[in-house]
Amino acid sequence: MTTKAPDSPDIRVIALSAKKAQRRLSALGTAAKNEALLRIADRILADQEVILAANRQDVSDATVEMQAGRLSRSLLDRLKLDEAKLEAMAEGVRAVAALPDPANRIVEKTLLDDGLELDRVTCPLGLLAIIFESRPDAVTQISALALKSGNAVILKGGREAARTTSEIIRSLHRALADTPAIPAEVISSVTARAEVDALLEMDGIIDLVIPRGSNELVRYIQNHTRIPVLGHAEGICHVYVDASASPEMAVSICLDAKLQYPAACNAAETILVHHAAAPDVLRPLLGELLKRDVEVRACEEAREMAAGFPLKEASEEDWKTEYSGPVVSVKIVESLDEAIDHINTYGSGHTDTIVTEDRDSARRFLDEVDSAGVYHNASTRFADGYRYGLGAEVGISTSKIHARGPVGLDGLVTYKYKLYGHGQIVATYSGEKARAFKHLRL
Amino acid sequence: MTTKAPDSPDIRVIALSAKKAQRRLSALGTAAKNEALLRIADRILADQEVILAANRQDVSDATVEMQAGRLSRSLLDRLKLDEAKLEAMAEGVRAVAALPDPANRIVEKTLLDDGLELDRVTCPLGLLAIIFESRPDAVTQISALALKSGNAVILKGGREAARTTSEIIRSLHRALADTPAIPAEVISSVTARAEVDALLEMDGIIDLVIPRGSNELVRYIQNHTRIPVLGHAEGICHVYVDASASPEMAVSICLDAKLQYPAACNAAETILVHHAAAPDVLRPLLGELLKRDVEVRACEEAREMAAGFPLKEASEEDWKTEYSGPVVSVKIVESLDEAIDHINTYGSGHTDTIVTEDRDSARRFLDEVDSAGVYHNASTRFADGYRYGLGAEVGISTSKIHARGPVGLDGLVTYKYKLYGHGQIVATYSGEKARAFKHLRL
Repeated sequence: MTTKAPDSPDIRVIALSAKKAQRRLSALGTAAKNEALLRIADRILADQEVILAANRQDVSDATVEMQAGRLSRSLLDRLKLDEAKLEAMAEGVRAVAALPDPANRIVEKTLLDDGLELDRVTCPLGLLAIIFESRPDAVTQISALALKSGNAVILKGGREAARTTSEIIRSLHRALADTPAIPAEVISSVTARAEVDALLEMDGIIDLVIPRGSNELVRYIQNHTRIPVLGHAEGICHVYVDASASPEMAVSICLDAKLQYPAACNAAETILVHHAAAPDVLRPLLGELLKRDVEVRACEEAREMAAGFPLKEASEEDWKTEYSGPVVSVKIVESLDEAIDHINTYGSGHTDTIVTEDRDSARRFLDEVDSAGVYHNASTRFADGYRYGLGAEVGISTSKIHARGPVGLDGLVTYKYKLYGHGQIVATYSGEKARAFKHLRL
Repeated sequence: MTTKAPDSPDIRVIALSAKKAQRRLSALGTAAKNEALLRIADRILADQEVILAANRQDVSDATVEMQAGRLSRSLLDRLKLDEAKLEAMAEGVRAVAALPDPANRIVEKTLLDDGLELDRVTCPLGLLAIIFESRPDAVTQISALALKSGNAVILKGGREAARTTSEIIRSLHRALADTPAIPAEVISSVTARAEVDALLEMDGIIDLVIPRGSNELVRYIQNHTRIPVLGHAEGICHVYVDASASPEMAVSICLDAKLQYPAACNAAETILVHHAAAPDVLRPLLGELLKRDVEVRACEEAREMAAGFPLKEASEEDWKTEYSGPVVSVKIVESLDEAIDHINTYGSGHTDTIVTEDRDSARRFLDEVDSAGVYHNASTRFADGYRYGLGAEVGISTSKIHARGPVGLDGLVTYKYKLYGHGQIVATYSGEKARAFKHLRL
């Protein structure tokens, strides 16, 4: 796993330098960090020509790859930059500068005793490893979020975007060169595939890995590291149409959840329909789905109830599948409990919605479905940092630990306890004549 | 790794039942949970005779083991229960009942648009696996914390406490039998060693593992599971005596940090002394340590400066060692930076303190030392849930993810996003005629 690419500098040295550089970054105030971000935004626009030239070379190579069937059309589309996209990247960096600083916030202040004050203070996680595919705009976005929160990053981009990525990083370093307080090493990068495996073994040095790309990439990373990973391998989202659902609302939400952007992780893969709602909902719903060329894989009961519709047979495998395209599975359930059980068994803990006019069913669904997002009468597609109003999205997490659901800048900080004393020792507060603590929340 | 103990019920079935039972627990209000806790406290006292009888048998066997040198004196001491300890256990459960409920708190409320409200709400993690050694009182304490926060637990106690543990669990189940709303499966247990390995493989079912016991136990668990682990394998804590430290305060804090309870994880293992402070601090400090029979392992410079004192030679290994007893390592450093580097390199991220009269040095130390607790002029021994005023301590975490430092009830909850709509779909907020979000914090 740790085979080094020939001539690559030692990854451990890169990581340790980045970690050390982060200490200086972390000591900076918000104003200095924002200044650096604005400088980065300007620099990217100033360096537009070289970046676009590098991108044209990447795109030209990738086109050959695509024609040979080794690269997808959508990957090629995401790779391509133009003036408008660069302008949007710069705008994105400026937007991060405008966000509140998530670090150095005192979250709690407790007076343990006179002259002994305990502060819980947010602080950067430290060193992030970001591993992404295609999308060169991820470089500026993630680097900006990291800088803002006081973290150092090691970036590893996809091979197909190598020239573009390295040109953008050069541009970031030029901007940092004008900001002497921030060492260039806070934004580091590696390029060889073997170096990813080396990074994944650096628990204790790297504090968080953020993969941005295919489910396969995320799953590979989750399975090959002891470092915490922020992200989700799968988005198996459900719409549950309850007994008392409004049929029109149910159809509208199902269509939006499945079709508004089928490749998104928050698109629905399975529609569960309460058997009491099925007579009113099933045929209109299937009609609309089939009209839009969606392939429907249905349970036996649904196929019986919708005789005449060209439905495929759903297998056990379908309940666990993220189609990421115009396919949907449909299942009739006997009760709210069966729906909740199904979702907790087969879902990925991403986002699930109930369509119902019954407040009690809604309350139970929202309480008992164990997912990052649980919705009542709204499309699963709302699960997104921008729509949630987080300002910027670091990623969407299906883990329950640290950060869950769409994660904003807050996901890049942790906290530490700072205790300010005047020589206090614990012996004073122990034994027979123990002094009592005050424990006053300030 | 998954070899099942003969005749043990299937662990997966136990875990899935516990998880399902947790759904009912999680739906309960605070009052119902507190009522169950008070019932548990009463029941433990009512069952005192059978519990103490079981404990006498465990203690008798363990005494034989100790005499044969297979079990330590301190383990035997922790195993032993009496009426006073049972009373304290019941009191501990009542204290948890009195704490605020960490679940179902709305942390954030955002109006995304008219009739579309997003709530971030705390909720239980789900199913906890608690693996502990000796201390039968951990059973009631951890079960109480789990119930209070709405989590189910699977308990695995040490072999030496098997009879006591199972008698206490029987008592807990008797109390839950009087609380029909809470299924007995929310407190489950396994007894065979092989079952621990089976538990550790259940990522996706078990949400958090909490080991309570030796460093070896914690390290074994951290290295054998993909489930998040709450705890710390090591507590390598430092006292750094800065150039401008008050010598009396430095000596007092060093003695307390090392000797007030040397077996604790927050006891100091290494004392770093700035070379400018050494002439005033080193000899008095060493004198006091040696007077108290502490073995001192010192760097070359310290041994030269304190010629005549019986100091051992410190090796690289000493900087990484948690002695958990009356041994301390001492190192002279040239600067604050060297001290911070040393701590970030060799420390375990637990708790570190600076003794100084220089506010700027203190600020830099607290900002740049990457530990859960960073103190100015106070003993490292303050790192403790009770002393921090958390009410109850789930454990101390040296991870930066989810929970850091002493962890209270809050460490047993996560959050979910609940979205309340009236049929809203994302298509309305996309494209040319996109409706704008309001994103009003409520």
